[in-house]
Amino acid sequence: MATQYSDLEKAINTLVTNFHAASSDNQPTLKTDEFKNLLSSQLPTLVKSDHFGDVLKQMGVKEGEGVSFKNFWNLIQNLATTQHGLLSHEKLSKCTCLLL
Amino acid sequence: MATQYSDLEKAINTLVTNFHAASSDNQPTLKTDEFKNLLSSQLPTLVKSDHFGDVLKQMGVKEGEGVSFKNFWNLIQNLATTQHGLLSHEKLSKCTCLLL
Repeated sequence: MATQYSDLEKAINTLVTNFHAASSDNQPTLKTDEFKNLLSSQLPTLVKSDHFGDVLKQMGVKEGEGVSFKNFWNLIQNLATTQHGLLSHEKLSKCTCLLL
Repeated sequence: MATQYSDLEKAINTLVTNFHAASSDNQPTLKTDEFKNLLSSQLPTLVKSDHFGDVLKQMGVKEGEGVSFKNFWNLIQNLATTQHGLLSHEKLSKCTCLLL
């Protein structure tokens, strides 16, 4: 019998496998182009803008380096925290967040 | 036309709404019982054990306090990082993680 996974488990799995699937050579970090492709298909609003460099910087990616899972997770955390704030009807009176 | 969300966006949404839905009175933190119910339906292996108190402690929940979104996120991060490690075929030679 196949194991049944909960919605929450499936959601975690989706986040992790999206990162993995974006790597063409199964390396621990993604090349900038690979990451840009991932965003284009999954979070298109973040690539449309001229802010792509700022997005990378905010994720903690250093100039010339690849995107690690930790960098990627910073982005996910930022998006989740933002959405949590919106759902909680907190007033984001002074939002400096580039990832909105 | 309804907005189309990507798998990644839906996954983030699932994580956030699961936390929200677990609160009976829409408070910013969950009562321990509410959180236990959430785990029972979504991450049952974590409640089955006698380690529930340790799970809370590892999430940064202090004695007698509610479970904040930040606490909840610590758990999600821990699970995602673990799964990422497993998918990367890293050897977890000395794992002290209670959440596995």
